[in-house]
Amino acid sequence: MEHKHTISVLVENHFGVLARVATLFAGRGFNIDSLTVGETEDQSTSRMTIVVRGDDRVLEQVTKQLNKLVDVIKVMDLSAEGFIDRELILLRVDTSSKNRAEIIEIADVFGARAVDISRSTITLELSADSEKVDNFIEMMRSHGIKELARTGKIAMGKSKVK
Amino acid sequence: MEHKHTISVLVENHFGVLARVATLFAGRGFNIDSLTVGETEDQSTSRMTIVVRGDDRVLEQVTKQLNKLVDVIKVMDLSAEGFIDRELILLRVDTSSKNRAEIIEIADVFGARAVDISRSTITLELSADSEKVDNFIEMMRSHGIKELARTGKIAMGKSKVK
Repeated sequence: MEHKHTISVLVENHFGVLARVATLFAGRGFNIDSLTVGETEDQSTSRMTIVVRGDDRVLEQVTKQLNKLVDVIKVMDLSAEGFIDRELILLRVDTSSKNRAEIIEIADVFGARAVDISRSTITLELSADSEKVDNFIEMMRSHGIKELARTGKIAMGKSKVK
Repeated sequence: MEHKHTISVLVENHFGVLARVATLFAGRGFNIDSLTVGETEDQSTSRMTIVVRGDDRVLEQVTKQLNKLVDVIKVMDLSAEGFIDRELILLRVDTSSKNRAEIIEIADVFGARAVDISRSTITLELSADSEKVDNFIEMMRSHGIKELARTGKIAMGKSKVK
């Protein structure tokens, strides 16, 4: 079965580890939808969050191979359990006096913020879960998206109430 | 001279392109501080935003080599010109009845939002430029950061007033 998976890979902050991880996925025929990598609470480690689509059983093999890589500390499939996910986008849309009010109204509903404005464009910033981000992009598409940059997803397990 | 550079690489959404780009940086001795890759306004292309530290002249060579890679459409060094940059983090911090009010107050000042809360932790979401993000993490460090995930930077040129 083929599904979308969100994989979190905790790695030592060593040289070339990103290249090795990306090569492993490419070698197994996985296309990476999005990938983010940044430092964690411990500055000697980084966390990669990788969204891939592919066969479940092949992904299981990839996970095993990831665990064997030098510098890989921990691999988690976040698709399996409850987690908070967020993604950030910057989106620049064409505006005129006709549609500016409508765009700002939609932005408000989604909790997006204007970060830059000119006579003919407005640049919006939104952080939300991936579904909401996709819906927002869909809504803006009809107004003419000039430029779009998205970070890809980061995720964290939900906190346990204790 | 060694500087921090933000490189934007627009690529065709083809198989293995991330692995090739990451390998090219690793082969030249560049450590990648952060990398994000996600789809753009045109779904057949993705944009990578890569933050690296390294020698300016070597980076110039890397940029030339990137331009020669199949599937690479455009490379820009965003350090050179005015651009809007944003990064998103999820940060989980230890709380007790003693420090909860103070943490929420700091979060408010930075424009961070609470996305999850338990009796002993609070999980905050912040999107801002990298400097503000770093300052926020510094402020929270004294309260005990349990978990931190950061997307890495995305960037967009400032709009021209015309």
